[in-house]
Amino acid sequence: MTENINITLDDIRQADGLIRPFTHRTPVLTSSWLDDRLGTELYFKCENFQKTGAFKARGAMHAILRLSDNEAKKGVATHSSGNHAAALARAARSRGIPAYIVMPENAPSVKVKAVESYEGQITFCESTLDSREETLQKVVEETGAVFIPPYNHRDVILGQATCALELLEDHPELDIIMAPVGGGGLLSGTALSAKFLKPTITVYGAEPEQANDAWQSLKAGKLIPSEKPNTIADGLRTSLGPITFSIISRQVDDIITVSETQILKSMRDVWERMKIIIEPSCSVPLAAVETRPELFRDKKVGIILTGGNVDLDKLPWL
Amino acid sequence: MTENINITLDDIRQADGLIRPFTHRTPVLTSSWLDDRLGTELYFKCENFQKTGAFKARGAMHAILRLSDNEAKKGVATHSSGNHAAALARAARSRGIPAYIVMPENAPSVKVKAVESYEGQITFCESTLDSREETLQKVVEETGAVFIPPYNHRDVILGQATCALELLEDHPELDIIMAPVGGGGLLSGTALSAKFLKPTITVYGAEPEQANDAWQSLKAGKLIPSEKPNTIADGLRTSLGPITFSIISRQVDDIITVSETQILKSMRDVWERMKIIIEPSCSVPLAAVETRPELFRDKKVGIILTGGNVDLDKLPWL
Repeated sequence: MTENINITLDDIRQADGLIRPFTHRTPVLTSSWLDDRLGTELYFKCENFQKTGAFKARGAMHAILRLSDNEAKKGVATHSSGNHAAALARAARSRGIPAYIVMPENAPSVKVKAVESYEGQITFCESTLDSREETLQKVVEETGAVFIPPYNHRDVILGQATCALELLEDHPELDIIMAPVGGGGLLSGTALSAKFLKPTITVYGAEPEQANDAWQSLKAGKLIPSEKPNTIADGLRTSLGPITFSIISRQVDDIITVSETQILKSMRDVWERMKIIIEPSCSVPLAAVETRPELFRDKKVGIILTGGNVDLDKLPWL
Repeated sequence: MTENINITLDDIRQADGLIRPFTHRTPVLTSSWLDDRLGTELYFKCENFQKTGAFKARGAMHAILRLSDNEAKKGVATHSSGNHAAALARAARSRGIPAYIVMPENAPSVKVKAVESYEGQITFCESTLDSREETLQKVVEETGAVFIPPYNHRDVILGQATCALELLEDHPELDIIMAPVGGGGLLSGTALSAKFLKPTITVYGAEPEQANDAWQSLKAGKLIPSEKPNTIADGLRTSLGPITFSIISRQVDDIITVSETQILKSMRDVWERMKIIIEPSCSVPLAAVETRPELFRDKKVGIILTGGNVDLDKLPWL
């Protein structure tokens, strides 16, 4: 149930060099209102400003750039109702190859439009995991496209790792670095970069209580997937895979779980006070600071703000 | 109906030095999506990230720092239902003096809360201009506080001028610089700084068609206040004053007016594509670029994003 892969700092730096022309070096913002309230110093790495509105642009771009011309020529495929779909479609277009995206028929229209805007070719399916996997299998067989999974994949993890690399280059003084955990691609990459660059740093994952498979898996020492996760943080409903579980087990100091109420409250605090748009999944690390303030008091804390793709007609507090 | 005042670049640089410890040097963001669509290069100066969520923090802070100890000791007063109220309350607290704010009883609760959070002392009045002025007069007589008007005031204009100073220091290559125009404090300061630093630059004001007093006044060569302005851009319902009219007449190249539909569309584009929160008044310059694209084609355009104070429970498109 675990799968070990070998990743070096040099691998991450190479990924960084490869994707640099295709991604933003995102800014780091601070909030004196939050710092005063929480007695801490928070440094927010704004991946909501990343291409496609989410850090997923890094991993998808890197995975596609790593394909040989021969592998790439028939295109790439994935199933996703979220940010990985748009990121893969955009990355494929950058390389001039097709992207075949399997999406559940009930995917939010804003996500469908994003994939279409990058000329991704969508196949709709039923919203069960079985239907998604079957449909993807059929698409791959018909097209010869390469499947690029959303997180349990070496090159995707290497791409996501470039985000913490940038954050620690800009702020080497950080005591703690945090990312939310869904499938664990970002948290794996974050932990790898952080521990390479600063072995004394503490790495936390932040997870919704109602989709706490990473917390459970770490406690049990084996993969325990979430069953019917029911959280507003739609990007974090997925469960760890064998590769991400293996990395997170070794590199992450702890997982902090948070309530739905706190996720929503932290999301709204960021909108109101920082004037930036983040999606519910993105507020989970700040919710963790609010939930366990004693862990963060007087520390310098880096938080990866993962994405800002929200349906503005359906705000969660309305 | 016009009042000339003398302002030098050195005055603006002094204002900049004075307020620096109390205000943010705000970041400049870009959007490749907007640039591609409009065939231009837009540089957004993000005053929505400024202290109090609006550029008003600059002018209010500067006006208060310019008071002698003797003038300041009894506090300051203003009437405002908008961003100047919160900015003045915060600036007064920084100097340890009271701020007396006259607000109409129908002011949005989010604005009232902002003033309260900075310990401003609120007196409510009826929502007519007569009632606001009478109530303010009474408050000033009772307290001995100094009236700091929202825009038609030398030190307020000098404070607002620091924003374009920063933008042109960061991006001296700009061909055009734009600000929205309500009372004209920001546009006056922007034009002064821009023409001092780069005499060849073009300065545009952007104004709602439904509150187009600046456009009318410039055409007529005399002040023509808006009567019952009815625009969603609530920060731009005020009319020019004698000082701002005088500066804008001499320093601004043109005023571009825009429809309510375009204001709302540009606001939403910024939220969706740039992932930042701006208020309706703030989207008026981008709406002007959308309305008159031929003026901006292949130009480098600086746009001051004025503020991000929005009631998140009442979004204008819902």
